[in-house]
Amino acid sequence: MAVEINCDMGESFGLYKMGDDEGLMPFITVANVACGFHGSDFNHMRETVRLAKRHGVRVGAHPSLPDLQGFGRREMKMDREEMANCLIYQVGALKGFLEAEGMSLNHIKPHGSLYGMAAKQEHIAHAVADAADVFKVPLFGMIGTLHEEIYPARGHELVAEYYADLFYGDAGNLIVTRVHDPVDPEDSAARAIRAVTEGKTLSTGGVDVTVRADSICVHSDTPNAQAVAEAVNAAIRPYMAQAAE
Amino acid sequence: MAVEINCDMGESFGLYKMGDDEGLMPFITVANVACGFHGSDFNHMRETVRLAKRHGVRVGAHPSLPDLQGFGRREMKMDREEMANCLIYQVGALKGFLEAEGMSLNHIKPHGSLYGMAAKQEHIAHAVADAADVFKVPLFGMIGTLHEEIYPARGHELVAEYYADLFYGDAGNLIVTRVHDPVDPEDSAARAIRAVTEGKTLSTGGVDVTVRADSICVHSDTPNAQAVAEAVNAAIRPYMAQAAE
Amino acid sequence: MAVEINCDMGESFGLYKMGDDEGLMPFITVANVACGFHGSDFNHMRETVRLAKRHGVRVGAHPSLPDLQGFGRREMKMDREEMANCLIYQVGALKGFLEAEGMSLNHIKPHGSLYGMAAKQEHIAHAVADAADVFKVPLFGMIGTLHEEIYPARGHELVAEYYADLFYGDAGNLIVTRVHDPVDPEDSAARAIRAVTEGKTLSTGGVDVTVRADSICVHSDTPNAQAVAEAVNAAIRPYMAQAAE
Amino acid sequence: MAVEINCDMGESFGLYKMGDDEGLMPFITVANVACGFHGSDFNHMRETVRLAKRHGVRVGAHPSLPDLQGFGRREMKMDREEMANCLIYQVGALKGFLEAEGMSLNHIKPHGSLYGMAAKQEHIAHAVADAADVFKVPLFGMIGTLHEEIYPARGHELVAEYYADLFYGDAGNLIVTRVHDPVDPEDSAARAIRAVTEGKTLSTGGVDVTVRADSICVHSDTPNAQAVAEAVNAAIRPYMAQAAE
Repeated sequence: MAVEINCDMGESFGLYKMGDDEGLMPFITVANVACGFHGSDFNHMRETVRLAKRHGVRVGAHPSLPDLQGFGRREMKMDREEMANCLIYQVGALKGFLEAEGMSLNHIKPHGSLYGMAAKQEHIAHAVADAADVFKVPLFGMIGTLHEEIYPARGHELVAEYYADLFYGDAGNLIVTRVHDPVDPEDSAARAIRAVTEGKTLSTGGVDVTVRADSICVHSDTPNAQAVAEAVNAAIRPYMAQAAE
Repeated sequence: MAVEINCDMGESFGLYKMGDDEGLMPFITVANVACGFHGSDFNHMRETVRLAKRHGVRVGAHPSLPDLQGFGRREMKMDREEMANCLIYQVGALKGFLEAEGMSLNHIKPHGSLYGMAAKQEHIAHAVADAADVFKVPLFGMIGTLHEEIYPARGHELVAEYYADLFYGDAGNLIVTRVHDPVDPEDSAARAIRAVTEGKTLSTGGVDVTVRADSICVHSDTPNAQAVAEAVNAAIRPYMAQAAE
Repeated sequence: MAVEINCDMGESFGLYKMGDDEGLMPFITVANVACGFHGSDFNHMRETVRLAKRHGVRVGAHPSLPDLQGFGRREMKMDREEMANCLIYQVGALKGFLEAEGMSLNHIKPHGSLYGMAAKQEHIAHAVADAADVFKVPLFGMIGTLHEEIYPARGHELVAEYYADLFYGDAGNLIVTRVHDPVDPEDSAARAIRAVTEGKTLSTGGVDVTVRADSICVHSDTPNAQAVAEAVNAAIRPYMAQAAE
Repeated sequence: MAVEINCDMGESFGLYKMGDDEGLMPFITVANVACGFHGSDFNHMRETVRLAKRHGVRVGAHPSLPDLQGFGRREMKMDREEMANCLIYQVGALKGFLEAEGMSLNHIKPHGSLYGMAAKQEHIAHAVADAADVFKVPLFGMIGTLHEEIYPARGHELVAEYYADLFYGDAGNLIVTRVHDPVDPEDSAARAIRAVTEGKTLSTGGVDVTVRADSICVHSDTPNAQAVAEAVNAAIRPYMAQAAE
């Protein structure tokens, strides 16, 4: 059993800063790098890829709906082909920077509303798989959703995520909040361990729900993100995959 | 001696149409495909790459300053690293679509003001070469400018262009107009032949200036672009490189 | 009974042209001018306002979802307050140009998906009314939708539109197509007259449905838009309001 | 003698925060509100106008070159008419929000590179005056530049600014830095007083240069901006104009 810790990175834009990427890199193994459609721009992408390289952190693409002002968190109606094109553009752009740094693309993880849309709308899940067809990398997602149903059926590995800093409803559903509150690092670490070893997590309603934790996700915009990442990292280190390619 | 005919393509954006790409493809061997920063978007890029593939036309990237409203024709002050990043992003995005269609990147040709800036500003010419370092493809440009001075010195092949539908000043300089007027197709063809065979063209002042024509450029936004492309194509066919890779 | 002819105008963007504004202006009384979010930009807005002024055509704002690439035709999830802000920004921008030309704002007509969303989603209809609260102008819309239910209840005049170049379903619903096909000008004119005088139109299913035609809308992107506008104009001239303010 | 304190405000964008607007409002009399082209968006503009209203702070427009990624700090070549249109659009948009809150527009202050371009390029200074012709408000600027030469000659009041948190060269020129370092609040306050009472400031070369301080500018992105604003406010309160309209 080899577990990763992933984190969304490179979301700063122009002079606008978001997330403490430097502080978090030491505690993660995989970075999901924004591609300019919800956050980031060509300068921050370059910098983030270099930062990941220095820390031996693998890099995946974190493409989004085309909505910088809404940070990719406003659902938009898009058909399958235009959604796939939107993803190929962004992932290709990131690959340019990976090529510049002699790195390879590790995975694709859709961002924000797109992640949720791919969980519930068939044509969007297929559009994500269409993009993965091009780049031939695993897809990040969640069990109990269309991610689990469609990605593997299309021949793409699903790297199942467990969110150590968010809560789960009684149906195993993730409770997504617009702004992330601070969470207790030790509690997050304990829940991560349990997700990894038992495949269970306690819902907000107090029942055990089934999860799968191939990769633990820690959000960079949780106010105490670094402490959470550090605690989770320390806890699951025994189960962690090698970061080096 | 193997000559190409190149044309800027894929410049439509959303519902907005620009250029008769379908009409021109049969007469060119190389397409410079816009990357979304002055024209095009992820849907038109996909379509244009497919169209080129069907016609056996090779595809290069046509990256621009980040200025969709200005169609990349307003100079902007950018430093070398941010300019290089801007190019890597765009070329990478295009490569995504080439990968999707099983094609490889043929070259990079900077668009609009960026082309002119790279001809005159050292740090911009170097930024273009920095991007070419990543993708390891030839660069399109003009002799008598920094293109000729810097690109080959940086180890990159310069594919020298002759513009069959524009005019040249007495100093060998290209006379760029915001809007392209119709030109006489037969006259364009004759000038193309002379550029290819003699390396000369008649300036607006009536003197012969030296040119180099590895590739003949025909603009898609000249009102009678298709007739020009057809005439140039017929004339230089004996000197033309094979379009097939 | 005073009837208007309105048309969406000023949708060109940068070098990209859309619609024959010059050709249509002589045949309309009211222009809905795009505000830069689905089409247009600050240059085209200025030009369009001037063109309308020369023709004695009144100008209303045609604000959109923030989606230039999608031409405002992709639904996006937005809450009431951010939607209202989005509209106030666009209408205010247009008012700047009206102020520059000594004209006043005639009305607000939401564009594309926003028009449809306001017809069906209460919070969006209210957001439109919130913007109208600021500018104190009538709202364009359709009977049988939330436009009719909410705008007048909020104290705003509803200028009910009849679409002379689109078709109606048996439920009185407008059949919106992504691309507009040519229509028979005489047929459009006849349907406009009937809508104005009888308040009826024949649906695609062959039944009479009730319409209200305070203003006849003609689309500028119908291929034969000018002929349609001319025919409709000639037909309803007896019922037309004075264009002069 | 009535002196103001002005500050650039409302520069946050989407989820990205910039500047402590709430912390600074109590210490200023005039806010220059970003209009969405270098920072801000329709939501932040609405919020900032409301915040200013609660604090009795007057609001002017802070329009920019169209360059969100570059925060309006990259020079772009634009001609006079398109520059004027660009400004009218932005100022009009802000006026929409002022209208929504029952406030009036106090002034126009060009942002970033545009401010510097208007100081040195005649056609840009005229474009700024063209926009002021429409809105009939004073213009913020600096003596010893084209601001002083052109704005008043065009009939527009020049509100001359003194920058309390930047340094001046021996020629009276402002030394603009990309990132603002912390400055000593008491030193800033002392320099502000001297600028107001004596019309002098000590240059970095140690010579007295002439300044005019109708309005003291404090930057919101100086790290200790609030302390600077508070100290300057306390010092020049005796000379300050009433904030209330």
